[in-house]
Amino acid sequence: MTGVARAIRAAGLDGKFSMAEMASPRFLRPLAAPGADTGQAATFGSSQQLLLDAGHALVPFTVAFKTYGALNDTRSNAVLICHALTGDQFAASCHPVTGKRGWWDMMIGSGKPIDTDRFFVLCPNVIGGCMGSTGPADIDPATGKHYGLSFPLVTIRDMVRAQAMLLDELGIERILCALGGSMGGMQVLQWAASFPERLISAVPIAAAARHSAQNIAFHEVGRQAIMADPEWKNGAYALQGTSPSKGLAVARMAAHITYLSEAALQRRFGRALQDRESFSFAFGPDFQIESYLHHQGISFVDRFDANSYLYITRAMDYFDLAAEYGGVLAEAFRGSRTRFCIVSFTSDWLFPTVENKRVAHALNAAAANVSFVEIATDRGHDSFLLDEPQMFATVRGFLNSVAAQAGVA
Amino acid sequence: MTGVARAIRAAGLDGKFSMAEMASPRFLRPLAAPGADTGQAATFGSSQQLLLDAGHALVPFTVAFKTYGALNDTRSNAVLICHALTGDQFAASCHPVTGKRGWWDMMIGSGKPIDTDRFFVLCPNVIGGCMGSTGPADIDPATGKHYGLSFPLVTIRDMVRAQAMLLDELGIERILCALGGSMGGMQVLQWAASFPERLISAVPIAAAARHSAQNIAFHEVGRQAIMADPEWKNGAYALQGTSPSKGLAVARMAAHITYLSEAALQRRFGRALQDRESFSFAFGPDFQIESYLHHQGISFVDRFDANSYLYITRAMDYFDLAAEYGGVLAEAFRGSRTRFCIVSFTSDWLFPTVENKRVAHALNAAAANVSFVEIATDRGHDSFLLDEPQMFATVRGFLNSVAAQAGVA
Repeated sequence: MTGVARAIRAAGLDGKFSMAEMASPRFLRPLAAPGADTGQAATFGSSQQLLLDAGHALVPFTVAFKTYGALNDTRSNAVLICHALTGDQFAASCHPVTGKRGWWDMMIGSGKPIDTDRFFVLCPNVIGGCMGSTGPADIDPATGKHYGLSFPLVTIRDMVRAQAMLLDELGIERILCALGGSMGGMQVLQWAASFPERLISAVPIAAAARHSAQNIAFHEVGRQAIMADPEWKNGAYALQGTSPSKGLAVARMAAHITYLSEAALQRRFGRALQDRESFSFAFGPDFQIESYLHHQGISFVDRFDANSYLYITRAMDYFDLAAEYGGVLAEAFRGSRTRFCIVSFTSDWLFPTVENKRVAHALNAAAANVSFVEIATDRGHDSFLLDEPQMFATVRGFLNSVAAQAGVA
Repeated sequence: MTGVARAIRAAGLDGKFSMAEMASPRFLRPLAAPGADTGQAATFGSSQQLLLDAGHALVPFTVAFKTYGALNDTRSNAVLICHALTGDQFAASCHPVTGKRGWWDMMIGSGKPIDTDRFFVLCPNVIGGCMGSTGPADIDPATGKHYGLSFPLVTIRDMVRAQAMLLDELGIERILCALGGSMGGMQVLQWAASFPERLISAVPIAAAARHSAQNIAFHEVGRQAIMADPEWKNGAYALQGTSPSKGLAVARMAAHITYLSEAALQRRFGRALQDRESFSFAFGPDFQIESYLHHQGISFVDRFDANSYLYITRAMDYFDLAAEYGGVLAEAFRGSRTRFCIVSFTSDWLFPTVENKRVAHALNAAAANVSFVEIATDRGHDSFLLDEPQMFATVRGFLNSVAAQAGVA
């Protein structure tokens, strides 16, 4: 165990973990505001290499995380939150860079569906990310320079492996429930396949067991936009003092459209003009939808690292859980005693219901315990981040049931 | 009438038009191969200004076009083909830049659904385009320099106005049928609204009477990709000897995804790898879908002008036919005697059936003569360019009926 990990264990595992958090000593690539809570981090040394699917070992490496609520004496109330592509560990607390509330603030907290009065909620930043876990924006200790493209490619399984090592460090053997939307749901499914004995229940939301051709295509457009930016410098922009912010903004804008739905865009923006009565007959943002997209692009580059975007999108593209099991998805869950609750949204065209049902069918084929909820909404993929009462009720009810079954108060 | 237009009239209007085509004297921005048939062009001088919706007058201006088949003695067999965003006048002949066959080669020709043995087919390049019609890549005669961003914004209505002036020049009073897919269908609808007395029948395919918020959003992503390219030089790349080809390729890749469907992408590419057995764990094109997209991006920049892409996408965004008529689409067609045949495709999510039906409902409300055909296919928006037997049969049958009614042999 490394010194930092030891310090975390010492500080955290006696029910005092929640509010006594250590600031991460690591440099956060998107700069945190002075005094902001940057969460905690566990660094693993040479005795605890992270063996990657790419064939490399990552050593040393750090997993940054945030916790909410307190671990109980029997260490049986841990709930793991897996974040999506552009998410991070600040699921239910103020983001240290943007100052905005957490991306699942409606879901996690005292009295909320994932109730921090009962559960110890742990949310790690994924390997390859840019909010404290080791990623391409970090310094490679072997060279003293930023990794950039010399950082090895990571997979969803690598992310999950690192999370399992973090749990080991924290002395948590079993997770009461792992939950996540989108790429978070991919991690939840990978958890169920890789560590079934450690996972009492799983809630993948708006997810899939494989990335589709269309989704790979959209990701590739985003990557090409970043790599087309001359300030990207073949990934060495940190070294060269440049920033591929224009390319990253374009990538974000393209992706953002896929997170919504045509109906929601039409309802919210339609063809309404932005602060004007008539067309400008120029290329500025005449339409509200254009201003909105620009805002999405510009605000994203302040908080996200372009290379991390490349690495994490690639991890999603590579994800195909069945491929690990001879192409038969059910085999990934054979013999599993984990309880599953799968949630999809009717208007999600990025991870449509049909992909979520595919997972449910595979679980049925493996005789696993699975319930499936499709929620009617026109707000698209991003519904998992929004005020969706049926999602909250589903998660609350499922967690209550799982906790009761597991004897968690 | 200008000299060029006179020459065209002299050369073309006695049934000898088809094969005696004049090469355009104008510089084609994407360079045509030596000896390639670059079609014809009519240039309009100061007595025939093109009054634009933006409030400017374009003078002089040129409309480049291609014709197929021969005009009959009564000039009653003219069929107008309106091209889509990245289309051009080479609908049924070898493209002078790429050498590829025309984009509607399956549709237009001897014995084909639009039968050049019977019909005189006219396909103009849109104003703002880059294949011979006046656009931002041209030299502004007032300054002697490339227009670039000083070119005025054009609208779908401007495109149609220019086409009507071309028809005047050619001595064609009435069109037997106007047909077009996507933005071509927008022009067909605008024709029906602006010049109902000149249009005997109309076939808008995979079109809409307004551009949706989502479609505007995708266009804006493409424009931002182009404008983020430092070689764009605020539109003055021709003057500065640069080329925003990376930005244009990204724009094309993003757009191309929207022309297809998830089902078609899954069927054609799925998660198949490109010339490899396993992942590279790098950022090259591992997946076939990535190679395919790269090809789409790279081949596009050889034949299309980046500024034209900005201008034409903007024209589509601005299109909202009802807005011209107090927001009531039916008013656009009030009293129309034009016969309509509206065609949509089940898997088209860019111009979905619901938008096509909206047009049909408005035509019904205006008591117009309309038939509506939804064709079942999983090939998405681009179906209008593909081998879709039901589309061919529909167009053939409709044209035959219209021709018989109009007394065209």
